[in-house]
Amino acid sequence: MSQPTNSAWGGRFSEATDAFVQRFTASVEFDQRMYAQDIQGSVAHATMLAKVGVLTEQERDDIIQGLTEIKADIEAGNFEWSIELEDVHMNIEAALTKKIGITGKKLHTGRSRNDQVATDIRLYMRDEIDHLSSEITRLQSGLIELAEKEADTIMPGFTHLQTAQPVTFGHHLLAWNEMLERDYARLQDCRKRTNIMPLGAAALAGTTYPIDREMTAELLGFDAPTENSLDSVSDRDFAIEFTAAASTIMMHLSRFSEELVLWASAQFNFIDLPDRFCTGSSIMPQKKNPDVPELVRGKAGRIFGHLISLLTLMKSQPLAYNKDNQEDKEPLFDTIDNVSGSLRSFADMMPHVKSNKEVMREAALRGFSTATDLADYLVRKGVAFRDSHEIVGSAVGYGVKTGKDLGEMSLEELQQFGEMITEDVFDVLTLEGSVSARDHLGGTAPKQVLAAAKRAKERLANR
Amino acid sequence: MSQPTNSAWGGRFSEATDAFVQRFTASVEFDQRMYAQDIQGSVAHATMLAKVGVLTEQERDDIIQGLTEIKADIEAGNFEWSIELEDVHMNIEAALTKKIGITGKKLHTGRSRNDQVATDIRLYMRDEIDHLSSEITRLQSGLIELAEKEADTIMPGFTHLQTAQPVTFGHHLLAWNEMLERDYARLQDCRKRTNIMPLGAAALAGTTYPIDREMTAELLGFDAPTENSLDSVSDRDFAIEFTAAASTIMMHLSRFSEELVLWASAQFNFIDLPDRFCTGSSIMPQKKNPDVPELVRGKAGRIFGHLISLLTLMKSQPLAYNKDNQEDKEPLFDTIDNVSGSLRSFADMMPHVKSNKEVMREAALRGFSTATDLADYLVRKGVAFRDSHEIVGSAVGYGVKTGKDLGEMSLEELQQFGEMITEDVFDVLTLEGSVSARDHLGGTAPKQVLAAAKRAKERLANR
Amino acid sequence: MSQPTNSAWGGRFSEATDAFVQRFTASVEFDQRMYAQDIQGSVAHATMLAKVGVLTEQERDDIIQGLTEIKADIEAGNFEWSIELEDVHMNIEAALTKKIGITGKKLHTGRSRNDQVATDIRLYMRDEIDHLSSEITRLQSGLIELAEKEADTIMPGFTHLQTAQPVTFGHHLLAWNEMLERDYARLQDCRKRTNIMPLGAAALAGTTYPIDREMTAELLGFDAPTENSLDSVSDRDFAIEFTAAASTIMMHLSRFSEELVLWASAQFNFIDLPDRFCTGSSIMPQKKNPDVPELVRGKAGRIFGHLISLLTLMKSQPLAYNKDNQEDKEPLFDTIDNVSGSLRSFADMMPHVKSNKEVMREAALRGFSTATDLADYLVRKGVAFRDSHEIVGSAVGYGVKTGKDLGEMSLEELQQFGEMITEDVFDVLTLEGSVSARDHLGGTAPKQVLAAAKRAKERLANR
Amino acid sequence: MSQPTNSAWGGRFSEATDAFVQRFTASVEFDQRMYAQDIQGSVAHATMLAKVGVLTEQERDDIIQGLTEIKADIEAGNFEWSIELEDVHMNIEAALTKKIGITGKKLHTGRSRNDQVATDIRLYMRDEIDHLSSEITRLQSGLIELAEKEADTIMPGFTHLQTAQPVTFGHHLLAWNEMLERDYARLQDCRKRTNIMPLGAAALAGTTYPIDREMTAELLGFDAPTENSLDSVSDRDFAIEFTAAASTIMMHLSRFSEELVLWASAQFNFIDLPDRFCTGSSIMPQKKNPDVPELVRGKAGRIFGHLISLLTLMKSQPLAYNKDNQEDKEPLFDTIDNVSGSLRSFADMMPHVKSNKEVMREAALRGFSTATDLADYLVRKGVAFRDSHEIVGSAVGYGVKTGKDLGEMSLEELQQFGEMITEDVFDVLTLEGSVSARDHLGGTAPKQVLAAAKRAKERLANR
Repeated sequence: MSQPTNSAWGGRFSEATDAFVQRFTASVEFDQRMYAQDIQGSVAHATMLAKVGVLTEQERDDIIQGLTEIKADIEAGNFEWSIELEDVHMNIEAALTKKIGITGKKLHTGRSRNDQVATDIRLYMRDEIDHLSSEITRLQSGLIELAEKEADTIMPGFTHLQTAQPVTFGHHLLAWNEMLERDYARLQDCRKRTNIMPLGAAALAGTTYPIDREMTAELLGFDAPTENSLDSVSDRDFAIEFTAAASTIMMHLSRFSEELVLWASAQFNFIDLPDRFCTGSSIMPQKKNPDVPELVRGKAGRIFGHLISLLTLMKSQPLAYNKDNQEDKEPLFDTIDNVSGSLRSFADMMPHVKSNKEVMREAALRGFSTATDLADYLVRKGVAFRDSHEIVGSAVGYGVKTGKDLGEMSLEELQQFGEMITEDVFDVLTLEGSVSARDHLGGTAPKQVLAAAKRAKERLANR
Repeated sequence: MSQPTNSAWGGRFSEATDAFVQRFTASVEFDQRMYAQDIQGSVAHATMLAKVGVLTEQERDDIIQGLTEIKADIEAGNFEWSIELEDVHMNIEAALTKKIGITGKKLHTGRSRNDQVATDIRLYMRDEIDHLSSEITRLQSGLIELAEKEADTIMPGFTHLQTAQPVTFGHHLLAWNEMLERDYARLQDCRKRTNIMPLGAAALAGTTYPIDREMTAELLGFDAPTENSLDSVSDRDFAIEFTAAASTIMMHLSRFSEELVLWASAQFNFIDLPDRFCTGSSIMPQKKNPDVPELVRGKAGRIFGHLISLLTLMKSQPLAYNKDNQEDKEPLFDTIDNVSGSLRSFADMMPHVKSNKEVMREAALRGFSTATDLADYLVRKGVAFRDSHEIVGSAVGYGVKTGKDLGEMSLEELQQFGEMITEDVFDVLTLEGSVSARDHLGGTAPKQVLAAAKRAKERLANR
Repeated sequence: MSQPTNSAWGGRFSEATDAFVQRFTASVEFDQRMYAQDIQGSVAHATMLAKVGVLTEQERDDIIQGLTEIKADIEAGNFEWSIELEDVHMNIEAALTKKIGITGKKLHTGRSRNDQVATDIRLYMRDEIDHLSSEITRLQSGLIELAEKEADTIMPGFTHLQTAQPVTFGHHLLAWNEMLERDYARLQDCRKRTNIMPLGAAALAGTTYPIDREMTAELLGFDAPTENSLDSVSDRDFAIEFTAAASTIMMHLSRFSEELVLWASAQFNFIDLPDRFCTGSSIMPQKKNPDVPELVRGKAGRIFGHLISLLTLMKSQPLAYNKDNQEDKEPLFDTIDNVSGSLRSFADMMPHVKSNKEVMREAALRGFSTATDLADYLVRKGVAFRDSHEIVGSAVGYGVKTGKDLGEMSLEELQQFGEMITEDVFDVLTLEGSVSARDHLGGTAPKQVLAAAKRAKERLANR
Repeated sequence: MSQPTNSAWGGRFSEATDAFVQRFTASVEFDQRMYAQDIQGSVAHATMLAKVGVLTEQERDDIIQGLTEIKADIEAGNFEWSIELEDVHMNIEAALTKKIGITGKKLHTGRSRNDQVATDIRLYMRDEIDHLSSEITRLQSGLIELAEKEADTIMPGFTHLQTAQPVTFGHHLLAWNEMLERDYARLQDCRKRTNIMPLGAAALAGTTYPIDREMTAELLGFDAPTENSLDSVSDRDFAIEFTAAASTIMMHLSRFSEELVLWASAQFNFIDLPDRFCTGSSIMPQKKNPDVPELVRGKAGRIFGHLISLLTLMKSQPLAYNKDNQEDKEPLFDTIDNVSGSLRSFADMMPHVKSNKEVMREAALRGFSTATDLADYLVRKGVAFRDSHEIVGSAVGYGVKTGKDLGEMSLEELQQFGEMITEDVFDVLTLEGSVSARDHLGGTAPKQVLAAAKRAKERLANR
C-alpha cells in the first residue's frame, strides 16, 4: 500500500511526496527547538478562542491539558518527532489530536502555520535576546572590576601597532566595555521590534473568525499585535537586525581576541591566560595555546556569514510567505549558540587574566611613547604645534640612531633640537606624568579611569 | 632636488614617500566630500580652545575667518585639492596656514587626525541619516495615500506565488509601509549612537591641554562626548549599524521591485508604470522596461556587500587607530548615494503607479482563492477545522479537473463533498464577502485598511 | 579526584581544562564525519613509516588491523565518541591504543594534528567534489533530454520580464545546461588544487624523521605532496574555492527556481510540477506550492554566507596553524549537504516537468514578440537599422492603443508606418518564422537547438 | 520645447524620461572605461558584417575609419560624454553617426546592447586578468629572490602565535609564494571561462542576419563563441569567478600584511620596512606606521564585499537580460583597481624589506622552540611518541619555573625527566640542528628551501 498523502494538505494531491523531498523540505530536525514557544503560543491562542466563543471552555481546557502533557513528554525525552509531519507545529498538533481526539483538530482554527511560526520564532528570539543581554552584562562587570584594579597599570598604547603613547591597562579594558555597552543597546532596540505579535495574520490576510489579537498579545507578553497581516507572515527583519547586532558583538570579541593572542605571545608577554582556558599541542610539548580567543575570533566570520544568508534569503521575495523563509532558522539558531558560547567563555575568562605589569611598563618606556608630551611641552613654551612636532621628530631620529629613548637623553642632547628646553622637561617625560596629564573626560589618567569605571557600573546597575 | 618629506610627520623620516604609495594611500579624492563637516568641527574646536585659554581670541577669530573663506573657496570651485597633502584635513589646514600664517598651525593643538576624522564622519552621517529619513517619510506618504485610494481594490493575495486568498491592493501597499516604518525606526536608533562626539580623544589617549569636551559637543550639536579615548578613535560601529539598516532598506526595496516587475509583466498585467520611469530597447521596439525597479533590485547586493566590507574591515583590529580604517569611507559614501537615489526614485514613482483593477479582480476570481472561506464556512457548520480542510481539498481537486472555480460550481456539485453545504455558501464565495470578513486589526477588510492608513498617517505626523 | 589534564598535551599544564571550554572548543561532534578519511590517512602513514624503518612491519600490521576494526566499529554504531578527546583524530588514536597497546602511540610519529586534519579534509573534499560532479552530470542529462523533446516548443523569451522575442523552450533549457557546464568545470579546477597532500608538514616545519612523502601521496591517490610545510598546515584556499564554486551552483539553481516558481503561477501557467515535488497548505486547501524550487532558492543565501564565513576566517591570520581554522569544517559540511540535496532534488524533478505548450504559444503570440523581426525585415528592404526601429516603435504604439498584435494588423495598417512593407511581411511575423530565422550557432532555431543538444551530450560523454 | 524621447527606443514612448531617472539609470560615467574594448568589438563586428554581405566594403571602411577617429578623440580628451545617451555604446554610436552619417546607424545591425556589453566586459576582463597575472609574477619573483637570500636566516615558527619550532625566514617567504602560485592558477582558470564570445546572441535569441560568429571570435582573439544566446546575455559567472579569485588574493595579502605589521612592531622587531612605504603621524613625531600593509589588509573586506554584491545581484534573476546586470561593473572595476594597487605596492616593497637577523635568532632561542626535537630524540632512544611528549612537557614546565630554555639546562637537569638522555642531546637542541633536520620535500631545512626556490623559479619561467 502506498504511503498516504500528507494529512495536513492532502485533499488536492494525487500522489504522495517523494521520500527524499520530504526529508529535504522538513524542518522538524531544527525547529523542534522551539517546542516550548509553540506550546506557549497555542495555549494563548486556545485561551483567546474560548474567550471569543470559537471554542468551548471544555475544549480549551482539554487542549491546554493535552499541550501541557506534551511539553512534559518532550522534556522527559518521551516524544517521537516524525519527519513525515514536517515541522514542530504539525508534530505537536498530531500528538494533541492523538491525545484528546477531535478537539485537537480545532486548535488550528483562525490561524495558519505562517503566523504560528512567525510567532514562535519571535517568542524564542525574545528569550534569547534576554539571555545574551545578561551575558553581556556579566562580561562587562568583569571588565569594569578588572579595570578598576588596573587603573594605574601603565602599558604602551598603540596606533598602527606602533608604540604611540602610554596608557593604562584599565583604560584599555574600559574601551572594550564601551563596545559592549553599544552592543547591549543594539540588542534592546532589536528587542523592541521583535516583541510584536504576528498571530492573527493567519495565512496572509487575516481570518474570518472573531479573534481578539490584543488579548493574545497580552497573554504572550508582546508589546502589541502587528499592523498588517501580509507583512506579519513575511517579515524577517528582526532576524536580520538581530544577526547584525550579533555580528557586531562578534566583531568586538574578535578584536579583544586579537589583542589577547598578541599579548599572550612571547614577544609581547603582557598577560597570562589561565591554563584552563588554553590547550596544548599534540606534538610540541611546550605550547600553551590561547584557544578560546582564537576560536572566538574564528567564529566572527561564521556570524557575518549568517547575516549575509538572511539578507540574501529575503532579497527580492514577493509577498507574502514563501518556502524560502524556512531557511531563516538554522542561521539564527547557530548565531545564538555561538554568540552565547563566546560571551560565556569571555565572561568566565576575563576576570582571571593576569597582567605582567613590569613587562608592560618596560614596553611603555621604550618606543618614544612620550614624544607627544615633549611636543606639547614645546607648545607650552611658545612653539607652534606643527613646528614642535618637527623638532621632536628630529630628536626621535637622533634617538633611533643612538639607541636612546627621549627620557634617557641628557639636557644637552635635547637642547640640540630646541634651546627652549630646560630641566623641567624631564617631568613630562615620565610615564606617570604622561598618563596623569591626560586628565579630562575620556582621557587615560588613572583618576579619569576610576571615574569612568564608576559611571559604567552605574549604567549596569540601572539596566 | 628630491621631494621633501611630508611636512606633517617628516622629522623622523629619511626618505620621501614613494610616489605610487602616496597616491595609493591618499584619501583626499573621496574624503573631500566632508569638507563642510571638517570646517564645522575646526570652528568649534578653535572656539573651545579660546574659551580654555589655549588660543587667544584674536587667534580664534583669525582661524574662523580663514576657515570661512576656505569653505567659500571650495564651494565656488576655487580650491586646489592636493594628493601630497593626503586628506581633507591636511588640505584645509595647509590652506589655512597659507592664508593666516603661523596661527593656522595652532589649530591642531589638542587634537589629532584620529579624533578629527572620527568627528567629521559622525557629523556627516548625522546629516545623511536625516536626509534618508525624510526620503523614507516621503515614500511612506505616497504609499499611504495610494493605499487609501486602493482600499477596496481586490487582487489575489499570494503565498508561494500561488493564489492564496483575495486581498485588497491597499492592504498590500500598507504591508510595504510597515517595512519602511521599521526602517525609519532603525535609522533613528542608529542616529542616537552616531551623534556622540569623539573629539578630544586626540591620537588615542586624550590630550594634555585643558580641553572642555562638553562645550565642543554642545557647539556641534552632539548629544554627549564619548566615554573612552581609545574606543573613540577606533570605533566604527555606527558605520556598520548604518550600513546594516541601509541593507534592510534595500532588501525591502528589492521586494517592492520584484513585485512591480512581476505586476508589470504581460502575464500579470496588474499595473502600469509611468513611461518616464521606464526605458526601451535598442533592438526591440515594443519593449517598455521597468528599469527603475530592476536597477534598485540590483543595487541591493551592492549595499549588502558594503556591509560585509565594513564588518570584515573591523574584524580582529587591535586598538586603537589603524590605517585599515581609512577604508570605511568609500563603502559608506556609496551606500548613502545609492540608498538615497533608490528612495528618491521610489518616492517619485509610486504615487503614479496605476492599478489595472479589472485584471486584478479577474485574477482573484481564479485560483480557488475563496477555498479558505469555504473551509471556515464548514467549521461554522460544525466540521472540525482539519476535516473541513480535507473536504475543501477534494472540491478543489474536482474543480481542477472540471475547470470550474468554487463559485462556479452548482450546489449539487458542492454537496458531493459535504452534505452540510447549503445555499448560503455562495455568500462566502464572493470576493467582497471574503475580504470584508477578515475584519480585525491587521486584516485585509477595506474598513481595516482605511483605519490602518489613518494610524499610519498619524505616526508620520508625529515624527 | 580532579579530572586529569588532557593526555595529548598535559605535561606543561597545571590545571585541567574548564568543562565548558572543553565542550566549546571540541570538534568531535562535527569532525567525526571524516572518520573514514582519518583512518585512510593513518593506514597510509603507517605503511610509509614501516617502509622507511620508523615502524616495524609488525607494528604496521597491528596498527592497520586495529584501525580496520575501529572503522568497522564506527560503521556498526559501536564507537563511543568522547568530547574529552577533542576531535576525531584523538578519539581514533585513543581507541587504537586501547586496542593494540603501546604501538598505537607510535602512529603519531612524524606527523601532527595540523597536517593530519589538513589531509583528512582534502581527502573528504575530493570525494565530495566527485559526488557533486556526478549529480551535476545527472541534472544536465535530464535537461538536455528534455531540451531535445522541447526543441520546437515556442514560448516568449523575456528581457526585463517583458516579452521580447519568441524562443523555444528547448533553447531556454539549454541555457541552464550551459550554466551547469561551467559549474562542472569549476569543480574540476578546484579538485586539481584540492588533491595535493599536506601530510608530512607535521606541526608547521616538517619532521626530523626520514619520511617519504611521495610514497604517502601515491598511496592516498594525491597528485603530489605540497611544496611548503608552513603553507600546508595553514592553507584553506581549497575550502574557499570550493565554496565559491558551490555559491555559483546555488546562484544558478536560484535562477532556475525563480523561473519554475514564476512558470508554475496561475498568471504564467507555463508548466506543471509533479505533485510529489510540491506541498500543500495547512489552511488553504487549493494550494499546490512549488516548495522544492522555493527552498533551493532560499538556500542560495546560506551558501553565500558560508563563503563569507571562510573568507573572513582566513583574513589576517598569521602563519601557521591557528585554532581559528577549526571553524572551517561546519560551513564546508553544510555547503556540501545543501548543494548535494539541491542538485539531487533538481536532477530528480526536472525530467518530470511538463510544459503547457498551448499556453506558452499563446503568450508568445502576445506582446509584439515579432517586432524585431519586422525591424529586420525593414532593414532588408533598405531602411537603416536605427530608423527601422523607430518605425516599428510607432507600429507597436498603434498596436497598444488598438489592442492588436503586429501579426493581427492588416497590410494597410502596417503600411501607415512604412510604405515599403508588402504582403511578404506576414512570413516574418509568424512565431515559427521568427525562431527558425535565428539560425546560427547559439541561436534559438529548433535546428540549432538540436545541434547544441547533440554537442552538449558529447561533452557529457567525454567526462 | 520638451526634451525628445530617447532616440534609441523612443517610438513606443509617450513621455520623456524623468531627469533624475535618466541620471540614476545611466552608466556612462563608469562604463566609458571600456571605450577601447567597445570600439575593438565594433570594428570586428563591422568587418564580419561586410564579409557576410550585410555591409558593403565601403560602409565597413567608413565605420572603421570613424571609430578609429573617435578612439583618438577619446584618448586626446576631446570627447564629450553625454548622460542623455545612457552608456558608452550609445555615446560612441551617436558620435559615429554624427561623423559618417547614416552608415553609422547600420553598425548595430545583427547585434544588441545586451550582447555588445557582454562582449566589451569580457574583453576588458581578459586584459585585466593578464595585467594582474603579471603583477603576481613580479611579486613572486621578488619573494623567491628574497627567500634565497634568507634561506638560512633562523626565526621562530609560530602556531597560535606561540613559538613552536625554529624555521627559516626563507621558508616562511616561500609559504607566501605558494599562496600566490595558486592565485595565479585560479586567474588562468578564470581566464579560460572569460575568453568566450557572446557577440551574436543579439538581444537574447540570436539574429536573423547571416552572421559568422566564428569569424568575429577569431578577430577578437576569443577562444570560441558561446553556445547559447539566452545564457550569453545573462551570464555573469566570469565576474563572480574573477572576484572570488581576487578575494583570495586579497585574503592572502591580508595575511602577509598582518605579519608585516606584527614584525614591524617594537615587540617583534623582526623587520624594517623602507621609509618610503610608511607614513608618520600628525601628532606623534616618533611614529613610523606600516601604512601599506595596513591599508591592503583593510582592502580585503572591500573585495569580499564586491563578491557578495555580484552573487546577490545574480541571485534569482530570471532569464535573460535584466537591468539589474548594469550593477556588475562598478564592483568589478573597483576590484581590479584595488587588487592591482595592492599587488603593485607589495611587488615594489617586498624586495626592500630588511630582516633583523639577530632579533629573529634571539626570539627563536627563547620559547622552548626545540622541544619537538627533544621529543623526537627520545623516540629515537626507544620511547613511544606520546610518552616522550609527556616527558618533554615536564621538562618545559621545569624550564618555565626556572627561567631556563631546554638548551640552557644541564645534563643532570634534563636527566631528571628521562634517564635515557645523554650528552648527544645537545646536538638536537641547537637551532641549526633543528632546522637542518627537517630535511624532506616541503621541510624548512635550508637545503630544502633553496631547492624549493629553484623549482619555484622554474615554474615562473615556464609561464
